[in-house]
Amino acid sequence: MKKPSHFLFALLLSTGFFTLNAQNAKQEEDAYFIRTIYDTALTEASCYDWLYHMTKGIGGRLAGSPESAAAISYSRHILDTLGMDTVYLQPCTVPTWVRGEAEQVRIVNSEQIGTQELHALSLGHSVGTGPEGLVGEVIEVQSLDEVEELGRAQIEGKIVFYNRPMDATQLNTFSAYGGAVDQRGLGASKASEYGAIGALVRSMTTRLDDVPHTGAMRYAEGVEPIPAMAISTNDAELLSRLLRKEKVRVFMRSDCDPTPPATSYNVIGEIKGSEYPDEIILIGGHLDSWDVGEGAHDDGAGCVHAMEVIELLRKINYQPKRTIRCVLFMNEESGLGGARAYWKASNDAQEYHMAAIESDRGGFTPRGFSFEADDEVFTSKFQQVYTWLPLLEPYGLELSKGGSGA
Amino acid sequence: MKKPSHFLFALLLSTGFFTLNAQNAKQEEDAYFIRTIYDTALTEASCYDWLYHMTKGIGGRLAGSPESAAAISYSRHILDTLGMDTVYLQPCTVPTWVRGEAEQVRIVNSEQIGTQELHALSLGHSVGTGPEGLVGEVIEVQSLDEVEELGRAQIEGKIVFYNRPMDATQLNTFSAYGGAVDQRGLGASKASEYGAIGALVRSMTTRLDDVPHTGAMRYAEGVEPIPAMAISTNDAELLSRLLRKEKVRVFMRSDCDPTPPATSYNVIGEIKGSEYPDEIILIGGHLDSWDVGEGAHDDGAGCVHAMEVIELLRKINYQPKRTIRCVLFMNEESGLGGARAYWKASNDAQEYHMAAIESDRGGFTPRGFSFEADDEVFTSKFQQVYTWLPLLEPYGLELSKGGSGA
Repeated sequence: MKKPSHFLFALLLSTGFFTLNAQNAKQEEDAYFIRTIYDTALTEASCYDWLYHMTKGIGGRLAGSPESAAAISYSRHILDTLGMDTVYLQPCTVPTWVRGEAEQVRIVNSEQIGTQELHALSLGHSVGTGPEGLVGEVIEVQSLDEVEELGRAQIEGKIVFYNRPMDATQLNTFSAYGGAVDQRGLGASKASEYGAIGALVRSMTTRLDDVPHTGAMRYAEGVEPIPAMAISTNDAELLSRLLRKEKVRVFMRSDCDPTPPATSYNVIGEIKGSEYPDEIILIGGHLDSWDVGEGAHDDGAGCVHAMEVIELLRKINYQPKRTIRCVLFMNEESGLGGARAYWKASNDAQEYHMAAIESDRGGFTPRGFSFEADDEVFTSKFQQVYTWLPLLEPYGLELSKGGSGA
Repeated sequence: MKKPSHFLFALLLSTGFFTLNAQNAKQEEDAYFIRTIYDTALTEASCYDWLYHMTKGIGGRLAGSPESAAAISYSRHILDTLGMDTVYLQPCTVPTWVRGEAEQVRIVNSEQIGTQELHALSLGHSVGTGPEGLVGEVIEVQSLDEVEELGRAQIEGKIVFYNRPMDATQLNTFSAYGGAVDQRGLGASKASEYGAIGALVRSMTTRLDDVPHTGAMRYAEGVEPIPAMAISTNDAELLSRLLRKEKVRVFMRSDCDPTPPATSYNVIGEIKGSEYPDEIILIGGHLDSWDVGEGAHDDGAGCVHAMEVIELLRKINYQPKRTIRCVLFMNEESGLGGARAYWKASNDAQEYHMAAIESDRGGFTPRGFSFEADDEVFTSKFQQVYTWLPLLEPYGLELSKGGSGA
């Protein structure tokens, strides 16, 4: 709560601090400048109030939903109050989807345990089962490859249950997530290719509990869409244990429905650079979230990080030499509609981005930053960042090379 | 959630790892050993379940309360299941206190705002006002020294309101807390010396909100005890604003009551060292907490940290060469009754502690460890720790000298 290192880093980047003041006699002035940013963040920042409104006031902000529209309106209003040179909405097209009411997965007539409801949630953008639901025999697999190996003979007419856990021993939970999430994203589509009638996916978490996790899925082109649902990790363990002893049939029921694409918006605010207005430093987060939570960590926190950078620049009366652009993206969760619209508009305008920093890994104490850069850019520009380490160390910010790549 | 660095560090210390394996050809074996600890912690640790029971099952564990007795019984039971050489309760004497029902602070007949209730909590070990409550004019001060300067002429018959905020700009929140908490601990006693009839204290937090914070206070010997209550930071700001414009009278009412000292217990479990049984490495937390919360961070987390070290040692079948002693202290919050009993028993037995590590700064991602050591010990033993840094770096643990002292 007390270490706004995300702000600090983004602010320093925003102010052009890194490219202007390095390795010279201004170290003391620099240290004072950082301290000013830091103190202002700790004493005058509005970000927690903003986040409270985005989460407790507005709530889950599924792209295309009324809540997402409220978040667009709210964040635009806040940026309007921050005295930027321009604040505008950038239209984008987003896929939409409604979850519906009924979400049910039920083990039917097991010899071991009889009939039992499982904790389940439809995956985002899945089709529903229709009001009658569907019943099928469950076949457990550990991967998409295994579905291919089993082939149509084993898969057709069944409900494919993807049960490869996230690797809890991975230091980086995002890597653990990345190592399992193909099952959620593409598992149903792959199963459908081989004639499955539905897909169940073990929830993406290393915890064993009763909370099912939703998330994005999609169907490959030309594939018959089949219903896809997540079940809790405890229920996945239960189902797997049963399957070792008997054939298990499951009833699935969901009302969810992909609805037509809609127009939504990125919210963008800009402070024009005084010396290099054509060199853009982007700071951003994404406004949309899933519907079953409040989107605090994913990614309300990232939005208010970016907005706070602007507020702090204003409070310390700093006029940046480069253009600072705060972008609150729409539709990160499923489709990147906002990112695509931004990319296209920026490319069409032949803009130059000196740097882009997005915060989308939660609002806890920052553990680090990962970045991608061309080797040339990394060598010529970002190596320099290391030389400022002593200035940042008092704030608990450590820079180590990680996650970079050509 | 995913980085049990507290465990890791304490475990490495516990196993004697640090003193045996340094700077030699066993680096690879050491790295493997650390990895084993780490993986076991991430996949088999029970600490979250334990913490859930301590907080959601038992709840606030004020020393001497039924809840504290439940926590003693529960944690003893858990240690009993971990196959230690000995598990026992160590008696100690703890001050007791009951909060009572009525807790009220009300601004009376303000010209600006009329009558208004404030968010208030009695401070731990304060006397109550009695059923009639008390009314007095408020005098705001910023420090205990200011009370002395104002003297009896200004203070007598009044309610002294301590309103020096915690310094939000301090990097280390514990330092910010330490810089303000004398008002809560000793403010009422000092005010009473000069004839005050009650004390109000701005809650110890850097946030501006409506949540009053309780905490320990005490009366100096021979001082007439007067009621002491905390008010929320928002209410402290309100009261201070009013006082700039008018004389303000406040009604205080509390039923709290210091009750006679009681016997309680530290819970202690021990694994005897195979080679140096007389060299003790202590790991610990404290079982007691305040009553108005669940004591998750303060200090349920510390207790399960310590207990988890034992569980992991068992799971990886490691027989330590030195004695590992897990101590769950009673009554850290007000009086250190458990710590005093432990100290006396240990001193009487002329025990030698090679190291003692307590976790009592919350359960978030660890940011570091502070330690105290004699210069000689620091130089001869702890400098060595730095040489193992490369082995710990993969786990995000950074060692930097801080908080040490002769």
